[in-house]
Amino acid sequence: MLSLISGLFYLVISFSFRTYLISSWKREVKRFVDLTVEETSDLWLTAQKVGARLEAHYNASSLTFAVQDGPQAGQTVPHMHVHILPRKGGDFEKNDEIYDAIDMKEKELKNKLDLDKDRKDRSLEEMAQEADELRKLFL
Amino acid sequence: MLSLISGLFYLVISFSFRTYLISSWKREVKRFVDLTVEETSDLWLTAQKVGARLEAHYNASSLTFAVQDGPQAGQTVPHMHVHILPRKGGDFEKNDEIYDAIDMKEKELKNKLDLDKDRKDRSLEEMAQEADELRKLFL
Repeated sequence: MLSLISGLFYLVISFSFRTYLISSWKREVKRFVDLTVEETSDLWLTAQKVGARLEAHYNASSLTFAVQDGPQAGQTVPHMHVHILPRKGGDFEKNDEIYDAIDMKEKELKNKLDLDKDRKDRSLEEMAQEADELRKLFL
Repeated sequence: MLSLISGLFYLVISFSFRTYLISSWKREVKRFVDLTVEETSDLWLTAQKVGARLEAHYNASSLTFAVQDGPQAGQTVPHMHVHILPRKGGDFEKNDEIYDAIDMKEKELKNKLDLDKDRKDRSLEEMAQEADELRKLFL
């Protein structure tokens, strides 16, 4: 699910894992170091704001932020993005299991993007519906 | 090991785990959301720069960035900080083991800060020596 949330970045939401990704909207950027000063500031100010809204929305009490910056860090999609996960006490048996969820999300994202490459037939209605649902969180 | 690397943030280095932390220098900030716009931008521009230098220095090819933002995300020290880890192929048997290292580092940091609380006798010479070693990386 994609929606424009700032001039430069968009949000991808997976309700299954409650894993949220923020990535650049305007251009493809492989690594964190490739972001400009303006993009770096905008990305993290956006991540900060999105994290706070998601934490409140899910009655959570903490957040995990993670960037797998490059393939040797587990990045499967060569497009820099930030993972944001609202956290609660006891949400994972071991704290580190959250990173398995991030890795699964990473693979799911790769599959999704590969699919998008094959069929570029996402309807306007579908996108409008997704945007409506997201808007409630970020009004 | 601490050293001033920007107007607002400092770097903590552990050579044992190659885990690097960036945290705020001027004031204690518990959660990411508590950082001002200026601090947020400065923190991540600093993290971006430090990551690039460390990756080159260690002939690494990727970076892991992680923030355990709040106790339910594994944060043990109530002072917002970013973990940066240079990554290479095969550095951990399973990618997620890197987060065990982050958790161990988190506990080590807590112990260190608790020790610092008990004995505030860190010498100027000691600090100067640490700063000298760091300077080589960030000239």
